[in-house]
Parts: sequence; structure tokens; C-alpha cells
Amino acid sequence: MTKAAYQVLEQRYRRIGAIKEAQAILHWDMAVMMPSGSAEGRATQLAELSLVIHEILKDPGIEDLLTIAESTPPSSRTQRANLVEMRRMQIHANAIEADLVVALTEASSKCEMQWRHARPAGDFKLVSKELENLLSLVRKKAQGKAEILGCRPYEALMDEYEPEVTIQEIDTLFNDLLTFLPELLDKIQTKQKGTGGLLGPLGRFPIERQTELAKALMKQLGFDFEFGRLDVSLHPFCGGVPEDIRITTRYSEESFVESLMGVLHETGHALYERNLPREWRLQPAGQARGMALHESQSLLVEMQLCRSAEFLEFISPLIKTAFDSRAKQLNTESLIAYYGKVEPGFIRVDADEVTYPFHVVLRYNIEKSLVSGDLSVSDLPDAWNDGMRNLLGIVPPDDQKGCLQDIHWFSGSFGYFPTYTMGALAAAQMYAAIQREYPEIRDCVRAGDFSKITEWCCQKIHRQGSLESTSNILINATG
Amino acid sequence: MTKAAYQVLEQRYRRIGAIKEAQAILHWDMAVMMPSGSAEGRATQLAELSLVIHEILKDPGIEDLLTIAESTPPSSRTQRANLVEMRRMQIHANAIEADLVVALTEASSKCEMQWRHARPAGDFKLVSKELENLLSLVRKKAQGKAEILGCRPYEALMDEYEPEVTIQEIDTLFNDLLTFLPELLDKIQTKQKGTGGLLGPLGRFPIERQTELAKALMKQLGFDFEFGRLDVSLHPFCGGVPEDIRITTRYSEESFVESLMGVLHETGHALYERNLPREWRLQPAGQARGMALHESQSLLVEMQLCRSAEFLEFISPLIKTAFDSRAKQLNTESLIAYYGKVEPGFIRVDADEVTYPFHVVLRYNIEKSLVSGDLSVSDLPDAWNDGMRNLLGIVPPDDQKGCLQDIHWFSGSFGYFPTYTMGALAAAQMYAAIQREYPEIRDCVRAGDFSKITEWCCQKIHRQGSLESTSNILINATG
Repeated sequence: MTKAAYQVLEQRYRRIGAIKEAQAILHWDMAVMMPSGSAEGRATQLAELSLVIHEILKDPGIEDLLTIAESTPPSSRTQRANLVEMRRMQIHANAIEADLVVALTEASSKCEMQWRHARPAGDFKLVSKELENLLSLVRKKAQGKAEILGCRPYEALMDEYEPEVTIQEIDTLFNDLLTFLPELLDKIQTKQKGTGGLLGPLGRFPIERQTELAKALMKQLGFDFEFGRLDVSLHPFCGGVPEDIRITTRYSEESFVESLMGVLHETGHALYERNLPREWRLQPAGQARGMALHESQSLLVEMQLCRSAEFLEFISPLIKTAFDSRAKQLNTESLIAYYGKVEPGFIRVDADEVTYPFHVVLRYNIEKSLVSGDLSVSDLPDAWNDGMRNLLGIVPPDDQKGCLQDIHWFSGSFGYFPTYTMGALAAAQMYAAIQREYPEIRDCVRAGDFSKITEWCCQKIHRQGSLESTSNILINATG
Repeated sequence: MTKAAYQVLEQRYRRIGAIKEAQAILHWDMAVMMPSGSAEGRATQLAELSLVIHEILKDPGIEDLLTIAESTPPSSRTQRANLVEMRRMQIHANAIEADLVVALTEASSKCEMQWRHARPAGDFKLVSKELENLLSLVRKKAQGKAEILGCRPYEALMDEYEPEVTIQEIDTLFNDLLTFLPELLDKIQTKQKGTGGLLGPLGRFPIERQTELAKALMKQLGFDFEFGRLDVSLHPFCGGVPEDIRITTRYSEESFVESLMGVLHETGHALYERNLPREWRLQPAGQARGMALHESQSLLVEMQLCRSAEFLEFISPLIKTAFDSRAKQLNTESLIAYYGKVEPGFIRVDADEVTYPFHVVLRYNIEKSLVSGDLSVSDLPDAWNDGMRNLLGIVPPDDQKGCLQDIHWFSGSFGYFPTYTMGALAAAQMYAAIQREYPEIRDCVRAGDFSKITEWCCQKIHRQGSLESTSNILINATG
């Protein structure tokens, strides 16, 4: 009977998995392909699919099946892990009503599409009404989930991205960082001033060539274009599904450095998705463990591997060939100076490792206040600019470089940002473990051989899916 | 109570409409964007959505609601029409089991993806197993629907595309055509031989320029890129949803003529979808009436309007500008000779108006035999080549130019082909009606003003949705 109940659950959750995949592709299409006139229609389509998933999870039969299966858990460890994840999803679903699911999906799509207008215009007011509406629904959701999960509303939102993380943990972590980071930032900046500093604009780089170079490096890192694509979107992301991974970037003809590093970052996400345990495809346990680990994979590739001197040594000649240039600025030393430069800037995704946490702290503080109601949407731009002044000593010239730069809030993602810094710390630990295990790793990287790194990640992180907790996966991987 | 039942039905069918739209976009993505490795995953996603729709329609509650609503029909004529369409969908759904729905969707996706390999290789054997599997499921479906609808299995398949059309009607129509077309073909060919005949290859035409020209003409015909796209796919089609219409074409650098006419053809489909009655969006009555009318719209634009001397006179200078050429072959007279040429060829979508029906008759005969079981999949290439020899006196050199050229069967569409010729005849009647109503229409076309034509189609055909039967729409439009 228990086995039967568990098997039925697998069938039902498989359906959810398939519909979520359909949503993932539709969401990619929305960001990359969809004409603007279709925003409302797409919102309706996505909301309908969310509703179908919600109905499957709220079916009283699921509660019965879960109870039966839990009362005599399956003997297989992995099935038990899957069962835990099934329950987790069901709890999240039961915490909110169907009409809120629909309203949230529709409001997210609408707000995201409106953000696409507001961002290039640098005018927060263009999207403030949509954000206000969306936030009020997000608060409702947070409230409902907090009651069921027995936590604070903002924690209930974080739980969607990284299970069981608490405000206290994040506060402690961020306070720790803030005790030494400002001083470190000062020191490095002083030191870099001494050594002659930074590069100017680099020249003109045809987008076609940038794309070719990006694709070549993606392949070198193990990205298989039979199972994925690289395209262009306003906000770079990695979407799609494990067999069909959709990376996006944005190009500028004036500079290739941001876009290239962005693609490498998303490739880290892509490898995670691609290597998830195939035997658990479409099941909850087959999904990525959480966004902290997800970001650890992108940041391991970007920050640990690709900004390293040996990686830049490897790509410097490739870059020169790609752009048919012998410019000194493309020498390894210049690239190291460029990619190693530490300097407060407005844009999070272009930030260095030292200033990056400040960006995350800013967003964390703001979104906590937005969710609690301490901060109103209309005060968001001011709060942003004040925060930038306090944390990094600079103030963005407009909202495009300020509070409009990230898609997260405008697509309904609150509670996501802390995972970036959690991921960054995990990435550093992982890369240290890899270096311990393979002392020769720098030489491999210099020679363009990343197989040891990607294989390590594949075995220790990717293939674990959601079969273990984040901390267990981390402990098993790094000790 | 009746009103309430009808309102509940509208809500339920609206959900189906939204999921079908999601499928439409996913299907476009599969044909245009999806990497090949994801074929199986996409099949699973699409099958799951089909299953959800099927479950909504097979819910016993729907039967009850339909019975109540039908017993005291709503007073509004349009609501009654919607109710008829609701019942039609429910009957089709109830004729087959859920597992067949899933199996069909999966088998269609797999076979279509395999066809993408087989077609360029020109090797039917590469896809014959998938087609065999798919056909066996299609036969099952046809059998199930035939029993419920009280018709022959092939008629049950036609009914999905064009309600209530019978084999006898089609046989009569095609026999009529075959009594005079061969003689007409001979006559025209003899006459054309006398006048010096056809153009040779036209030169080299950069794909970028072709795309620009195609988009400019689409706009001129009323296509709004805020609500749609033009992309590239192996088999040109018009997909997507009314607010987000996705036209595809395929280009060759050696010649622009086929691609351009293909885009104009699909633009006819696009205008139909775009102008469907907005107040019936997502409801059965808001959908296109059937594929005969759909093809009438594409063929009216392509065959009646765009191959006319006055249209070619209008675009000749545009073509010369687009390709920066003064070549005589781009003169109006040459274009008229080219687009007016009548000559048996292998490819249906490139065929002229006189030989086109032969292509349709061939496919009609073959698919009837495939569905009835008189013809086996392994004998399909021979049957195709024999048919081509008998009807047009030519035999394709390989399967790519033969039985692999069209996507229809390989994506599970049997019973569709007859609608092309029904549409062509309707298009001729419509254009005659337009010319009667607007005697000045040729001058308008010559000046690039198509508004009277598109407005006529919009009012008389597009805005009717499925609120009337095909024959009523035709009679009201053309008299």
C-alpha cells in the first residue's frame, strides 16, 4: 500500500514537472522572443498553467497519499528524499489560494513586461503601479506561507529559493561581511591606485564575433548545443529545462568583457541544470537543490575559475584571434588588471567580488522592508540611492543604473538576493576544495582543460539534485 | 440556472483556450528554436498539456453543464454558437481515451523531430518507423471518433479541420477538377511555350535583404509586428496566437521568389488569426472557423492578390530597390511571367494554381488509403511516385522532393490536405466578390493600397470566428 501510494505520487508530481517545464520555455520565450503586444495573453497562459499545478497539489487526494506514504516511508533513501520534497511543494501550495496563484502569475508577467519599458527609459514611475500591485500580492503570499511554515513572512519567501534559511542567519552573515569588507575595499583601492589602475574603453567588437567566442568557450566548459541555446535578452539569465538550456546575454559593441563574463556565469548555471540526476527527471528530487547552490555554480565558474590569472592567460590569445587584434589591452596582464579591478560601481552583475556583497546587502535590506511594509514602493528609488551612498559611496545618475537594473522584484522574486552571497561563499569553499584535491589544477586551466573542475561539480553538486540538503551537499563536497 | 451553466462552461473553456495557446507557442518553439536533444522532453510537455485539456473536457461535470445549457439555450445568438462549438470539442474529446491522447501527442512530436533529420537526407526510411507508430495511433483515433460521429474514419479526421465535410463531397469536387484541369494544363503549357517561357535562375539575394523586403510587405498588408514575428523554419507555417502571431519562412540566397510568396501566403493566415473576434478570445467561438476558410485567406492573399499583374507592378520597383539591382528579370513583365508560369513541379508549396490541385489530390488519395489501411507506410514512397507520374507526368528524384516534403503526416495531421483546394476555390469566389464590390480595386493594388481587401476579409470572414458555419460565412460574404 505504501509503495503504491508513493508510486501514485510520483505519477502526479511527474505531471507537475512537465507543466513546469512548459512554463520555463514560455518564460524564456517571453523574455527573448515575444512581441510586446502579447504580454497580457502570455500572462493568462502562464497563470493558467500555475493554476493547473496548484490544483494538482491542493487535491485532497495528494494529502491522503502523502500521509500514507510518510507513515511507512519507502525503503530507498532517494525515494524518501523525493517524498520530503513532495511534501515541501504541497505545503507551499496549500498555504495560498488558487485566485492568489493566478493573480500573482498575471501580475508578475505584467510587471515584468512594463519593466522592459521603464528600464531603458530610466523612469521608475513607469512601473511603480504594477510593482505596487505585485508587491501587495507577494505580501499576501508571504503572510499565508509564514503562518503555515511558522516563520516570518520574508523568510517564507526565501524558503522558495533556499529552504529553511532564516533572517537571523543572513543578518549574521551580512554583518560579518560588513565588519571587514569596507576596510578591505579601501585597502585594495589604494593598492590598485598605486599600480597604475584600470583600462579605458577597449575598442569596437562586432557582436557576431563576440557570440562566436562566447559559444566556443561555452563548449570548452562542457555546454552541449544539442541541448541548449545562447540568445539575447534585456536581463541575462539561464532558463529552459535540463535537456534544453537557454542562456541569454546582452552585447555591447564597445566592450566584450561584461557580456563574455556574463555568458560564463550563466554557463555555470547551465552545467548544473544539465547534469541534474536524469533518473529523477520531472520529480521534485531531480530539481536543483536551491538558489544558493545554483549561484555557487555560476560564481564558481565566473569568479573562481574565469577571473583567475590562468584562465585569462588561456583566453587572451583566443580573444585576440576572435577580434583580429593585437591590442595590448587584450594581453593577459591587461585582462587580469581589468577583471581583477575592484571599484564601486552601479551595476550588480558587473561588480567585482569585493563590492558584490554590498549590492546584495542593499537589495536584502530593501526587500525585507518592502515585504514587511516598512518601505513603500514610491520610496524605493530614494531608499536605493541612500543605500548606495551609505554602502559604496556612490549614487546612480538614474533609475536605470539604480533600482530598475535587476529584473527580480519586477518579476515577483523577493527573497532571492541573499542566495547570491551565500552562493559566492560556497563557491570559494568549493574551489578551495578542488585545488586541494587537484594541486595541478592551475596548469590544467592554463591549458584550457576544465574537465576536472566540471567533473568535480557534476559529481559532488549537480548529480545530487535535491536528494540531500544544501548543507549536507556542501559538507560532503568540501568537508 | 441555464445562464449559470453556460457561464461556468465559458470559464472552463477559457482555461482550455489558454492552455491551447501555451501549446501553440511551444509548438512554434519546437519548430523554430528548440535544440534537437530536447525532442523527447518537449513531447512530454506537450502531451501533458493535451492531457490536461482532455481531462477538463471529459469531466462528467462538463456533460451535465452542456446538457443543462442546451436544454434552455442562451438567448444570445453568439452564445448559442459558442455552445455548439463547446459541444463539438467535447464530443471529439470523449471519442478517445486519455492514454491515446498522450500517446498521440508524444508520437507526433517524436515523428516530427525525426522528419527533420529524414527530410534533408531525402531518406524516408529514417522516419518510417516513427510514422508507422504514429499512423497506428491516428487510425485508432479515427476509428473512435468515427463511431461517435457516425461517419467514416477518414471523415472523422477531416472533421477536426473542417467540420462535417464528407468523402463524397471531396470526391465529387476533385473528380470535377480532374475532368478539366489536365486539358487546361496542356493548353496553358502549349501557350506559354509559344510566348518564350520562363526565367532562369535570378542571381544572388542576401537573406537580410529578403527579410527586410518580406517584413515591409507584411506591414503593408496590415501585419503588426507589435503582435507577431517573422522567423525561419524547415517547413513554413503560421503559428502562435492572435496577439502573438508567428510566421516562418525558409530562404535561399539563389532566389527570393518562393520565400517572398511564402511569406505573403502566411500573412494571409496571420491576418485571419489577428482579426478573430476579440470579445470571444479563448472561447471556442472565437477560433478560426476551419482550415478551408483559413486556407482561403492565405490563398486569397497569395494567389488572387499577390500573383496579380497589378501587385507585381507595385512590388517590382520595391524588389529592385531591395536588391539594389536593375536586372530585367526584376521587371514587372518578367515577374508576371515567373509568378504566372504553369508547370508541373515536385513541390506543392511552390506550385502554381493550375497544378496545385493535383498535389492535393495525390495527398488526399494517399492519406485516405493510409488511414483505411489499404496502403502501408512502407509502400508510401512508391505510391507517391506513381501518383506523381499519373497526375503530373513527373517523378521526384528523391523522397525530399517527394513524400517527405510536407510536415503534415509526420506531425499527425491526416485529413488536412483537402482544405487547401476547398480554400483555393473559396478564395477565387471571394476575390471575385471583392472585385464586384470595388471595381477600382486593381488601381488600389497597383498603388500599394490593400486596405479595401483586408478590410473586406476582416469584416466578412475574420471577425466571424466560429460564430457561423463555413457555408454561411461564405454565402454571406460572396452571395
